[in-house]
Amino acid sequence: MSACAFSLTEAAEHIREGRLTSVELVQDCLARVDEVEPAVQAWAFLDRDHALRQARDLDERRAHGNPTGPLHGVPVGIKDIFDTSDYPTELGSPLWAGRTPRRDAAAVARLRAAGAVIMGKTVTTEYAYFHPGKTRNPHDPERTPGGSSSGSAAAVAAHMVPAAIGSQTNGSVIRPAAFCGVVGFKPTHGLIPRTGALLLSRTLDHVGVFGRTVADVALMAEVMAGHDDEDLDTRPMARPPLAAVAASEPPLPPRFAFVRSPVWDEYAEPATREAFAELVEALGDQISQVDLGESFGAVIDWQKKIMEVEMAYNLHRDYEKGGEQLSDPLRKLIERGRGISAVDYLAAVGGIAPLTQNIDSIFEEYDAIVTPAAPGEAPRGLSATGNPIFSTLWTYLGTPAVTLPIMRSEAGLPLGVQLVGRRHNDARLLRTARWLVNNVEG
Amino acid sequence: MSACAFSLTEAAEHIREGRLTSVELVQDCLARVDEVEPAVQAWAFLDRDHALRQARDLDERRAHGNPTGPLHGVPVGIKDIFDTSDYPTELGSPLWAGRTPRRDAAAVARLRAAGAVIMGKTVTTEYAYFHPGKTRNPHDPERTPGGSSSGSAAAVAAHMVPAAIGSQTNGSVIRPAAFCGVVGFKPTHGLIPRTGALLLSRTLDHVGVFGRTVADVALMAEVMAGHDDEDLDTRPMARPPLAAVAASEPPLPPRFAFVRSPVWDEYAEPATREAFAELVEALGDQISQVDLGESFGAVIDWQKKIMEVEMAYNLHRDYEKGGEQLSDPLRKLIERGRGISAVDYLAAVGGIAPLTQNIDSIFEEYDAIVTPAAPGEAPRGLSATGNPIFSTLWTYLGTPAVTLPIMRSEAGLPLGVQLVGRRHNDARLLRTARWLVNNVEG
Repeated sequence: MSACAFSLTEAAEHIREGRLTSVELVQDCLARVDEVEPAVQAWAFLDRDHALRQARDLDERRAHGNPTGPLHGVPVGIKDIFDTSDYPTELGSPLWAGRTPRRDAAAVARLRAAGAVIMGKTVTTEYAYFHPGKTRNPHDPERTPGGSSSGSAAAVAAHMVPAAIGSQTNGSVIRPAAFCGVVGFKPTHGLIPRTGALLLSRTLDHVGVFGRTVADVALMAEVMAGHDDEDLDTRPMARPPLAAVAASEPPLPPRFAFVRSPVWDEYAEPATREAFAELVEALGDQISQVDLGESFGAVIDWQKKIMEVEMAYNLHRDYEKGGEQLSDPLRKLIERGRGISAVDYLAAVGGIAPLTQNIDSIFEEYDAIVTPAAPGEAPRGLSATGNPIFSTLWTYLGTPAVTLPIMRSEAGLPLGVQLVGRRHNDARLLRTARWLVNNVEG
Repeated sequence: MSACAFSLTEAAEHIREGRLTSVELVQDCLARVDEVEPAVQAWAFLDRDHALRQARDLDERRAHGNPTGPLHGVPVGIKDIFDTSDYPTELGSPLWAGRTPRRDAAAVARLRAAGAVIMGKTVTTEYAYFHPGKTRNPHDPERTPGGSSSGSAAAVAAHMVPAAIGSQTNGSVIRPAAFCGVVGFKPTHGLIPRTGALLLSRTLDHVGVFGRTVADVALMAEVMAGHDDEDLDTRPMARPPLAAVAASEPPLPPRFAFVRSPVWDEYAEPATREAFAELVEALGDQISQVDLGESFGAVIDWQKKIMEVEMAYNLHRDYEKGGEQLSDPLRKLIERGRGISAVDYLAAVGGIAPLTQNIDSIFEEYDAIVTPAAPGEAPRGLSATGNPIFSTLWTYLGTPAVTLPIMRSEAGLPLGVQLVGRRHNDARLLRTARWLVNNVEG
């Protein structure tokens, strides 16, 4: 087995135990890039020499007996909206061509501190919004990989790196992970600081991660979690032991709430309906259907208002100077945001707290909510990235969510099963997710 | 000396040591009410029998050897915007006449848990905004007591209770305390939960306290401080030991930054200019003038926008059903708030974080900022409550602020000296305030 097929956890362990060097691993991953990148197009920037230099440095440090971090020597991909001190950061926009930040984003700095090799920058849609980049779905080059974290999802799915980071303001981690058939994890809002990442919406922006196992996304998230003075939504609390809890057995067989969500009737495609019918049958009396109340009906509109207003506010200068260099949908979004009144905006934000209480009551009886990650398999065509609507509610509420590639459509394409947990209970969600993968995969 | 003239700390100690009963203290305070209330008009609701019943209960509990709290048996006043389970809560508006909440506000519940007697509800302006209530200044019945916490300031100044609570969204604690010649303390935003109090503006609302000494406001605030699940701006951290630190000596002679603030030139009256010239002279090389940068110029407008938007949002239903029962200025404020765009609102809120950093740098060199509490002495007339403009910046920033009645105008009326501290450093601010009272009073 080629080293680039190792999971993040396996690769880190092999390096820690001296069975593999970082240089060998990175060389293997680069060989895989040579092989598949022409078709997949996951990378915005990738400097082979720079990646190998980092690997050599890390191997030397280990050889000299220096302490190593939990990701020592393992290469990861970084969505091109996170600032990096060694690669350009262009936000998927010609307006920022050649931009070279001086400082790493907090998430990148923490990955480096844990010993990761920053392999390169992955393709994002324009400003992490809808206008697609060049990336194609590794399972079918005629299909979208999803977005906005298109390159991160595709690079992990195609074994070019074992893990990568992305961001989600609506459905930008869960959807591409589901379309590309990898595990995508969006932790609780504020668990991972967003300092140094493109700011679209303080209320909605989340840092998320891609891996090929639940253990991998747990490890990645744990390394980046924790308080940061410059992100006011992070909390001055101890980092949760995500990897250890995710690796442990649930004390009781988990119970699942099957929440079709208010968008099921309109958006769930036949493939999704069939797959979930099978899943519900497989879980037997461990799963019950739970319907959300009518109060959730307004969420799609509220999330849209918040996103439009906060993007209009944060991208104000880009809009002023961008002109034709901004896509038409982005310009229109900003114009809609400018037209929204402050009281309507506050009403949209004001729904979060009461609906969170409402959702919390589900977790008194169930370990996780089970719901689709997307309407169906990755759609054909590269001019759009698919519909984020099955993520909207969980992004709005800031709950942790993970998608698991445990089902397939008739065409053999991946379908994601999204599990949602209680805010700040990320570890329990991941433990439940691992249980599900081990017990129903196939 | 009549017991009603005791400070809160003294009264609590006398009761604790068995030298005074709660009934004796409350009777003395009620006698004082009989004497001065016809002129001062500080109370919206005061039930003599109910107050004495609480006092008798507390005396009995102590006599039976039950544990007592730090305010055991001491009567306090509650601004009539805080819900009380035993008194009506009418928010200073005919629209809410006869409203009787079932549950105490969090601040009231904590006072009760500390052993306080809830003496009654004090007069507030309409919805804690500008339209005045019936209260008069105890120093001169032809002058305003200030607002919006008019009754609390006046009741404490007139020795009807040793302490009372109020609220501040612009200058509603600091200004009436200064006009009435008592100590007013507005702790850091979020230190005391606002659950169960009239919500005008989540961003700006603070719970504040009135007393006749720094020790008293420290004790009151400490009893009410701390995390509350229902106020999202409180923090899950240990309560600061405000009373103990306020009672201690500063390790070094404190250093003061005299900040005239951007509104001094336009608003500081001659009495204030003279008094501050004397204060600066008295403090010698312990005080230096510090000028705020130009970036503070927009704060008055930003605070106004936030207050208008958030009040328009929170008082939406009152506006719809209120009609003629709302004052014209309040209706107009709500209409202005409705007209503000969400992006302008976000720009106004967006100034808080960078300006806080800017102010924080002052506290690396100085223990406290010294600045006026109001333009001058309490103005003549009862149709308005004076100008909050010297509080606006500190309310906007959420910094702790305390006003000290250590100066007088030529007419012999109180002038407040406002000290401002670093966010979350309330204890140090109060220690510095006590030092100033002890060293320059006269």
